[in-house]
Amino acid sequence: MYRTHNCGDLRLSDVGTEVILSGWNQISRDLGGMTFIDLRDRYGITQLVFNIEEDKELCEKARKIGREFVLRAKGIVRERSNKNPNRSTGEIEIEVKTLEILNASKVPPFTIDEDTDGGDELRMKYRYLDIRRAPVRDNLIFRSKLALETRKFLSDHQFIEVETPNLIKSTPEGARDFVVPSRMNPGQFYALPQSPQTFKQILMVAGMDRYFQIVKCFRDEDLRADRQPEFTQIDCEMAFVTRDDVLATFEGLTKHLFKHTLNVDLPVFPVMSYDDAMEKYGSDKPDTRFGMEFISMNEFTQNKGFNVFDSAELVVGIVAKGIAPTYSNKDLNDLTEWVKRPQIGAKGLVYVRYNEDGTIKSTVGKFFSDEDLLDWGKRMGAEKGDIIFALSGETDKTRKQLNELRLEMGRKMGLMDPKVFNPLWVVDFPLLEWDEENNRFHAMHHPFTAPKKEDEARMLGGDFETMKALRADAYDLVINGVEIGGGSIRIHDRALQSKNFDLLGFTKEEAEAQFGFLLGAFEYGAPPHGGIAFGFDRLCAVLNGVNSIRDFIAFPKNNQGRDMMIDAPSPIAELQLKELALNVTVKN
Amino acid sequence: MYRTHNCGDLRLSDVGTEVILSGWNQISRDLGGMTFIDLRDRYGITQLVFNIEEDKELCEKARKIGREFVLRAKGIVRERSNKNPNRSTGEIEIEVKTLEILNASKVPPFTIDEDTDGGDELRMKYRYLDIRRAPVRDNLIFRSKLALETRKFLSDHQFIEVETPNLIKSTPEGARDFVVPSRMNPGQFYALPQSPQTFKQILMVAGMDRYFQIVKCFRDEDLRADRQPEFTQIDCEMAFVTRDDVLATFEGLTKHLFKHTLNVDLPVFPVMSYDDAMEKYGSDKPDTRFGMEFISMNEFTQNKGFNVFDSAELVVGIVAKGIAPTYSNKDLNDLTEWVKRPQIGAKGLVYVRYNEDGTIKSTVGKFFSDEDLLDWGKRMGAEKGDIIFALSGETDKTRKQLNELRLEMGRKMGLMDPKVFNPLWVVDFPLLEWDEENNRFHAMHHPFTAPKKEDEARMLGGDFETMKALRADAYDLVINGVEIGGGSIRIHDRALQSKNFDLLGFTKEEAEAQFGFLLGAFEYGAPPHGGIAFGFDRLCAVLNGVNSIRDFIAFPKNNQGRDMMIDAPSPIAELQLKELALNVTVKN
Repeated sequence: MYRTHNCGDLRLSDVGTEVILSGWNQISRDLGGMTFIDLRDRYGITQLVFNIEEDKELCEKARKIGREFVLRAKGIVRERSNKNPNRSTGEIEIEVKTLEILNASKVPPFTIDEDTDGGDELRMKYRYLDIRRAPVRDNLIFRSKLALETRKFLSDHQFIEVETPNLIKSTPEGARDFVVPSRMNPGQFYALPQSPQTFKQILMVAGMDRYFQIVKCFRDEDLRADRQPEFTQIDCEMAFVTRDDVLATFEGLTKHLFKHTLNVDLPVFPVMSYDDAMEKYGSDKPDTRFGMEFISMNEFTQNKGFNVFDSAELVVGIVAKGIAPTYSNKDLNDLTEWVKRPQIGAKGLVYVRYNEDGTIKSTVGKFFSDEDLLDWGKRMGAEKGDIIFALSGETDKTRKQLNELRLEMGRKMGLMDPKVFNPLWVVDFPLLEWDEENNRFHAMHHPFTAPKKEDEARMLGGDFETMKALRADAYDLVINGVEIGGGSIRIHDRALQSKNFDLLGFTKEEAEAQFGFLLGAFEYGAPPHGGIAFGFDRLCAVLNGVNSIRDFIAFPKNNQGRDMMIDAPSPIAELQLKELALNVTVKN
Repeated sequence: MYRTHNCGDLRLSDVGTEVILSGWNQISRDLGGMTFIDLRDRYGITQLVFNIEEDKELCEKARKIGREFVLRAKGIVRERSNKNPNRSTGEIEIEVKTLEILNASKVPPFTIDEDTDGGDELRMKYRYLDIRRAPVRDNLIFRSKLALETRKFLSDHQFIEVETPNLIKSTPEGARDFVVPSRMNPGQFYALPQSPQTFKQILMVAGMDRYFQIVKCFRDEDLRADRQPEFTQIDCEMAFVTRDDVLATFEGLTKHLFKHTLNVDLPVFPVMSYDDAMEKYGSDKPDTRFGMEFISMNEFTQNKGFNVFDSAELVVGIVAKGIAPTYSNKDLNDLTEWVKRPQIGAKGLVYVRYNEDGTIKSTVGKFFSDEDLLDWGKRMGAEKGDIIFALSGETDKTRKQLNELRLEMGRKMGLMDPKVFNPLWVVDFPLLEWDEENNRFHAMHHPFTAPKKEDEARMLGGDFETMKALRADAYDLVINGVEIGGGSIRIHDRALQSKNFDLLGFTKEEAEAQFGFLLGAFEYGAPPHGGIAFGFDRLCAVLNGVNSIRDFIAFPKNNQGRDMMIDAPSPIAELQLKELALNVTVKN
């Protein structure tokens, strides 16, 4: 037997008991007469004690044990004289009688501790040591719990988890597929799913009514920071539902997850239209932990002789409350440089500082009188101590720039408390995006998204401008500025689906070759249906108030799509290639 | 709103309520003045009634509705005059006030009913219609429940579900990998996992202590009946455990699953050695729902002048109780032909029939006296009314043949009740199998399996015969003759693992290239560990007393690895191939 208890189990009430523990040597300390070993496992740390006067040989054995050695210790639980209140087992220690080294360890390449001196590359290569560190370990445990709570909630709400296949069909639409050559069908390929979208719709046609799956998806994209070629979705679909049914169900799921992992009660989720989100925040995923909403300034700033504003499609500003006393001119210059960086792309930054002594300072003081600027303040709710920031230009670009500035001010002003969670539904997205370059429409969400009910007739019969104005019955769930889920009511009518493929530039033949099975299914009694998918990795990160998904994934890949630990991908044998009827056109 | 209730909800207590239901037209009947529609969804069937005297137009509309049309009906719940006790909603019906056709349907290519006239190919092509059938639907619901109960149990026992990567490294050992070309690393490939074996061991080195995952695995094998290129495992691993810890834990899981899905209480699981199983049943996965154990007959049948027996390594028989009166000579001749089929390969079948009138009839009556044969009966427990069947020859072959015969007799005699479940642990498998052809050892389980503790020293230092005799610390869980799980205590010592790779014919370089990361991990404090994996598809089938896994998989592939519904695999675009630096060497 390797253990009677784990290293997080023992308490004062166990004093006097003989126990066996197994684990790793976190750290050992030799204090002359006494040697201590902190024995660690997933559940905690327990202090082992060796007394040289009681057992010299054993104590000397203990002294030679290196970091991360695997040990099995048998001994008696006793009360500690100097207790450690930060540790669940901090009131006791084990007076060791026998000690067995189960396995030795080389000295780890980085410290196994809360913080580590291991860089990213080293941590990934020795991920098995990195995961021993409490923060990474706790992330994986959190992820497991989040998945279980998701499954419990959805099962309690009559969702059935159905596994959809991983070896499916490649479709040129959307992102690039990973493909899998078929040996039994030489020259043919499977694709790994970018999502189970068509299968979950097929399951609705199949009458499964409520489907979910926590499922790996695959996208062969050039990896930007914090993207992974394989990622996990909570994928869901429901039949006989309207948008509000879907929203209510997944608001319920989200609340359940926050309650049962963080013990946080979320408020009712507000619903905001895409247009409103763009107008108020310049983003379809606004961080609503703080206000600082956009205020259109055209009405009272244009035609006053300031050419920059007069020639702009939009003049728009935000009010940063109470920062005037602490923001130096240098700070404001820095901020101006910041918005002018190519990543943001603003031409300049207009500000109006309402000093506490009643004076006003502005970059546009030459063009506007103090009276004008006081009027701005009044209209925008800026008072003494506040600063107005304004940008101007073409509407979409200017909103994007001001969105960046608003978020930057939110960060600088400490308004983005990681312990505060502000959920928001964003709805009524445009259905189609016009792609000037390729002279075609793209689906804003995906080609199966239904237009809003009231737009259906117009979609079947409308002109180009009508198509651009169509609204999708789509929705995103945003928390703290991060899109954690998105979905839509789907088209369930063959005619409407065909029309959508037309608009997206599919020929009849292409639509048939790629999605014929779905179009076929629509002819055999497809029910109205809709669904949603949550980015599970992202959800883990958001709940923990962090930005990076990487440490919620046990074995992530780097930006070259490489697993540093196992060193994959790698060349394969000639025989394998031959069996697959393939030649590689590059040299390795 | 599409519905206030589902089609399985309504009861007598709802009479008088106005309700809205949505679903499919299962069948409609026109009885002159009345028209009935059976409205079906996942939850049940509810009868809709239309009365021509009350609303002629509505009734006529209802009459035109074809099978599988999708409908939304609003009406009043009322008590049925002729109740249907076989249906949960059989006491009520809906007097329909308004009816909306949500979608039409073409006539389905096969009947949507318990039994169907659709052949396998048609069912797979129109799987979305096949899944509407109650047996397939219920299988998928069962599977979902089984997965959830697995997760609940394991989570309650401190197992953490960790997702391991799907894009890993190809290893030539074992079955053939599916590979995935890497666009970002041209000429290099990922492999899809045949199992997460190395990753779960890495997680043990990483201190996760108890890991599980319900996970898709992939094998590019020529598909025999009822094999799938992608299949699902319950994959588990535990640290600081001995074999008995693992057995106890997963006996617990199995009991929990039977209890919570079938309400069946399983007995304590017996443990049988591989040697005993081979000797008593000629199989390492014996069906123990019935006895009919093998009895060695060498001692009392050899050296009596019957050359076939005298020259045999093994003479072995079974007793079929009570069948003598009903087994004709023709039956016995048929059975003899059956064992002589190439699939079984016996040269002949010896039987001794103990007739109820005291006479004895045997194929070897010429060589053995009635007294001899009575003595056989005494030794083997055969009485009047029984038949002894005996086979002879080389030990391993003869046992395999008699195993087939025993199972055939079990089937014929009705001894394999699908409602009876007999679990069994088979343990102490050979560690290595000698491959005459390639002059090397194969791992009986896999290359990470530990020898039994007492065999460790012999493994490091033994000769060829010693190696052949090594026992693995491995175990299989068998239920009703089906292996539903298997696992082992793993090697956690680098020296022993290297030795094993040596024995399996790996060069140092090959071992390093393929499993270097695992060997490396073993140097940083690998704990003792072991695990198990259950075939999840198979487990679903066994619990339902059926042989085929296919109808527990939502979208299975056929024997050519083809998904008939989506028509995959398929050729991909030249551009895709070019991006992957690949040429296809066959024409499509």
